[in-house]
Amino acid sequence: MSAALLRHPRLISLEGGEGAGKTTAINAIHACLRAHGHEVVLTREPGGTPLAERIRALVLKPDEAIAAEPLSAEAELLLVFAARAQHVRQVIQPALRRGAFVLTDRFTDSSYAYQGGGRGLDAAWIADLERRVVGLLPGLTLLLDVDVETGRARANGRDLWPDRIESEQDDFFQRVRAVFRERAQQDPQRFALVDASQVQQRVAADVVACVEQFLQNGEGA
Amino acid sequence: MSAALLRHPRLISLEGGEGAGKTTAINAIHACLRAHGHEVVLTREPGGTPLAERIRALVLKPDEAIAAEPLSAEAELLLVFAARAQHVRQVIQPALRRGAFVLTDRFTDSSYAYQGGGRGLDAAWIADLERRVVGLLPGLTLLLDVDVETGRARANGRDLWPDRIESEQDDFFQRVRAVFRERAQQDPQRFALVDASQVQQRVAADVVACVEQFLQNGEGA
Repeated sequence: MSAALLRHPRLISLEGGEGAGKTTAINAIHACLRAHGHEVVLTREPGGTPLAERIRALVLKPDEAIAAEPLSAEAELLLVFAARAQHVRQVIQPALRRGAFVLTDRFTDSSYAYQGGGRGLDAAWIADLERRVVGLLPGLTLLLDVDVETGRARANGRDLWPDRIESEQDDFFQRVRAVFRERAQQDPQRFALVDASQVQQRVAADVVACVEQFLQNGEGA
Repeated sequence: MSAALLRHPRLISLEGGEGAGKTTAINAIHACLRAHGHEVVLTREPGGTPLAERIRALVLKPDEAIAAEPLSAEAELLLVFAARAQHVRQVIQPALRRGAFVLTDRFTDSSYAYQGGGRGLDAAWIADLERRVVGLLPGLTLLLDVDVETGRARANGRDLWPDRIESEQDDFFQRVRAVFRERAQQDPQRFALVDASQVQQRVAADVVACVEQFLQNGEGA
């Protein structure tokens, strides 16, 4: 029997599809938390440690020597969780232990959305890996929600070299979005859903308002 | 519910600790199967595909940029199974489908021994990954068994730059050996236990005799 998940009040994750404005939003939250006097560790997934960043490159930006080899959905999931195992142990847990906030661009919800919804892998398997490898839930997850067409139009304007996941088709991203929304609906205590079809500054302002509310409720205490 | 494991008669694995003489033995089996007119795909784990070899390097021979980061047992297990997912789909299944023999230097039993026995991870987790990611059992597994002292003395004479697993202590390898022997005892139909404390030529001859017997029984048919 695996241990249950511990929801940690100082772990905050940002989730969302392509072109949702995560980068602008995360910088705004970072500034907000620092203005409140908190130490903030800003990080991302897949990645966050030297080894995990190496794994990220295998998954998202394979070089020529390996790009021709199709990556199976199963291998993708296991690589993402291997990176997450390192990220949790090397970065997230030590930061939380010393009282810092950890602000992460993507966390386990992305595995449910991309490898579960997008790739069709069994959500029960992902939940088992989450219990065995992660053991942690964010205190607050900000879901930047935008319809696939709008998000892709923005992402395409930005990415000259889309990565392996950005190169997927619209139905893939429809499934990703559906899982994100479903998870937000099932856990409204943890999730804040932000309308990311707005202009980026408005999205960032909404996100910061959610974080201020979270702090006022004493949840990040 | 995951599917059951399929034992494939033309999949042959070699298992064993450090310094058991696997390389000499595998070359002898290769020659024996070819002498019988079979196509043989000779491969190894972790590895066997370009991406899986890249994962192998992360696990066993991390370069300077990542060598200082401790690899968690969980990440090690997930990386090994990510490599195995690729190996099974890109190499093993296509070869078996066209009627070739696949001869692999290590397979899933090594995960039970090294990550289960050696690192202390839950064998039920490994069994779940085996069902979800591999789905296959070898028709014949040759376990080259040698006591840890003898094996290490041989391996140390050979390796100027031992890898991350070879650098473990004796008690680690005692646990690895115990799991290998236990698995062989529990599945005598699949396993052939070979005394690898003998000189390499004798080990290779014993191994070839096991394979000849296996073929005579019509098991590789």
